[in-house]
Amino acid sequence: MSKQIQIPRGTQDILPGETEKWQYIENKAREICEKYQYKEIRTPIFEHTELFSRGVGDTTDIVQKEMYSFTDRGGREVTLRPEGTASTVRSFVGNKMFGLATQPVKLYYMGPMFRYERPQAGRFRQFVQFGIEALGSNDPAIDAEVISLAMAIYQELGLKKLKLVINSLGDKESRKAHRDALIAHFQPRIGEFCSDCQNRLEKNPMRILDCKADRDHELMKSAPSIIDFLNEESSEYFTKVKKYLTDIGIEFEEDPNLVRGLDYYNHTAFEIMSDAEGFGAITTLCGGGRYNGLVEEIGGPETPGIGFALSIERLLAALDAEGVELPVVNKIDCYLVSLGENAKDYTVGLLHQLRSAGFSAERDYLDRKIKTQFKAADRYQAKYVAVLGDDELADNKIALKSMDDGGQVELPLDSFLEKFKELIK
Amino acid sequence: MSKQIQIPRGTQDILPGETEKWQYIENKAREICEKYQYKEIRTPIFEHTELFSRGVGDTTDIVQKEMYSFTDRGGREVTLRPEGTASTVRSFVGNKMFGLATQPVKLYYMGPMFRYERPQAGRFRQFVQFGIEALGSNDPAIDAEVISLAMAIYQELGLKKLKLVINSLGDKESRKAHRDALIAHFQPRIGEFCSDCQNRLEKNPMRILDCKADRDHELMKSAPSIIDFLNEESSEYFTKVKKYLTDIGIEFEEDPNLVRGLDYYNHTAFEIMSDAEGFGAITTLCGGGRYNGLVEEIGGPETPGIGFALSIERLLAALDAEGVELPVVNKIDCYLVSLGENAKDYTVGLLHQLRSAGFSAERDYLDRKIKTQFKAADRYQAKYVAVLGDDELADNKIALKSMDDGGQVELPLDSFLEKFKELIK
Repeated sequence: MSKQIQIPRGTQDILPGETEKWQYIENKAREICEKYQYKEIRTPIFEHTELFSRGVGDTTDIVQKEMYSFTDRGGREVTLRPEGTASTVRSFVGNKMFGLATQPVKLYYMGPMFRYERPQAGRFRQFVQFGIEALGSNDPAIDAEVISLAMAIYQELGLKKLKLVINSLGDKESRKAHRDALIAHFQPRIGEFCSDCQNRLEKNPMRILDCKADRDHELMKSAPSIIDFLNEESSEYFTKVKKYLTDIGIEFEEDPNLVRGLDYYNHTAFEIMSDAEGFGAITTLCGGGRYNGLVEEIGGPETPGIGFALSIERLLAALDAEGVELPVVNKIDCYLVSLGENAKDYTVGLLHQLRSAGFSAERDYLDRKIKTQFKAADRYQAKYVAVLGDDELADNKIALKSMDDGGQVELPLDSFLEKFKELIK
Repeated sequence: MSKQIQIPRGTQDILPGETEKWQYIENKAREICEKYQYKEIRTPIFEHTELFSRGVGDTTDIVQKEMYSFTDRGGREVTLRPEGTASTVRSFVGNKMFGLATQPVKLYYMGPMFRYERPQAGRFRQFVQFGIEALGSNDPAIDAEVISLAMAIYQELGLKKLKLVINSLGDKESRKAHRDALIAHFQPRIGEFCSDCQNRLEKNPMRILDCKADRDHELMKSAPSIIDFLNEESSEYFTKVKKYLTDIGIEFEEDPNLVRGLDYYNHTAFEIMSDAEGFGAITTLCGGGRYNGLVEEIGGPETPGIGFALSIERLLAALDAEGVELPVVNKIDCYLVSLGENAKDYTVGLLHQLRSAGFSAERDYLDRKIKTQFKAADRYQAKYVAVLGDDELADNKIALKSMDDGGQVELPLDSFLEKFKELIK
């Protein structure tokens, strides 16, 4: 036997028994997107590295420390996508979707993302994100729509312990005023902060508020809040978003410390958290917000945008934490048991007939004894077991047993499929 | 405006209008797998490079020339998967699936694969494969099942111009005899062949039969055929596979030149081709076969296996070539048109009600005039348009127009949803 080859560190196989849950979640997400009229886009797994340094931001941990970047055989610098928004916007620009007749352009994506982080329980280097982007509208109603779509996914899957937190980062003017206030606030004692924060002070002081290392510093609590710097327009915009959320019955909390570090984020920012006891601490499931500057940053015309991304792995963890069982079914309609060489051969055609008629069906492929075949039928949770021996075959008969009630009937073999269809209706 | 960033060469975005077709195909494939009891497995996008040099084979073009390999931040040699079988078998071994109660283990996968090839029409560096693997059975009936599942996918999607070609590569003994005969046949004139073939002579002479550069050499036609070297057991196995295919009504041609280069391939090999005129030449859509030595090669216990892989891109091309239109629907149930600020605000809640009740619905997010809103409703192919003005809102009324027959009714606004449900039933 050769040496085994391990799965790459920080990645996982999703196996039968689990994949059914993923399919269920994905179908639910697609169904909701259909109702909300978000359409799927699929972008490549890798992109030119420059896309992420521009679209995610050079100063972020993702770009500085976590990207799977490499040079391809043609000398191109490429990177496995660490998130979905930059690629979606790159495609929006490259395919000139800003010129489509139907506006705003409402897109969703679902697929693997890659970040070279320290693997932990529930944190993988390859993980799956679902996200949506609405490009081309500045109507606060679409902010409410985006948030409500995220909530719908969690709620329709059965989660209850959800908390929606929102904030406004205001427009450019408001952010500039807040930025100046932040610099004035932190500058005198910036030496007491970590080196990352010292770098952030001039580049991106809002990100200091996000710092995990310095979160207990006394200047954090007293830092100026963006809410106090919103100009009238920004304030009105935020009021509208909150009104619409209330109109559609979505509860929320406001948190002025919910920030987004990147320059092109503005107005609405939100997170959905789970406070299910199973998690221990409160956990962020989903984050999103408005990014009116991003399309320009990626080379397109000025276009407002808003979206969110959520991790399917974390969604599954939330379902576990709340003890929600997804309604995944794993029964087959019919298992074919055979006895004797001719009967066994005959089941090949019978099996094919059943499947072609739309039934899930199975038979033995290991020359097992009849008793072991019945055991296999149990494992497949077969609704019916059909039993065919060489004698029955010669007599044009087949026995059919219902595994629900134990009832058994004998059917003519040559009209088995028709009778089976009637029975299972 | 910043500079645009291009999509990486040889990759594509799949956009709304196209993604619906992908979804339809994927759903169909999943549905068929459910009937045949193949369960989904999802393995990582990248693997340790060694997996593919062992599992795909060091002498193949894929491993020698076409892999996206790189060193990750932890110094691991990793490769974006060029195909799905090696990863599936790696997971089968690592997760000890050979010990599962349900045998054989029947798996399917669907997802992007990566090969650095010269981009051509319809050939991408990132492409999507669907494939299945049945591990643990040596019953020729499962060979027929695997082939019939591939055929079912094409047929249920509406393809008609299909040709199934099969061959047997025999067992180890048969292959050894054939190999010796091939060496004896080519050796005297191997100098007339390309350098690749000269290398293949000792390592893997069967692959000479596959060579595109030398296919017109006169020794090719007269090369010894594997069929003449099948021992009794192999010959009986092949006879059974053909009998079962006939039993289930699948037509096939035999082609002794259909070979598989790698050592661990044996017995059944097959390809499904399209001879649709739209393609110009006959085109391979799907290839598969038995590989009883692969699991051991990857470090597992001796386990028979058989599977196939097909490209979704090529499947789409075949549908195009035959002019098959997939039944993809793109209508929405209701578009909300509003006139006046209060009515517009009100539609936020109404829209949410419709969607929560399961309807696909849309409204304007661009402050458009009423005429332009009606135009948008047409673009969405709305079945109904609901019209709400500030006056109607004050009077608790809303107008509902059927876009099918032009009929219009006035409904009480506060029971709109109930009335709408009744109408659309």
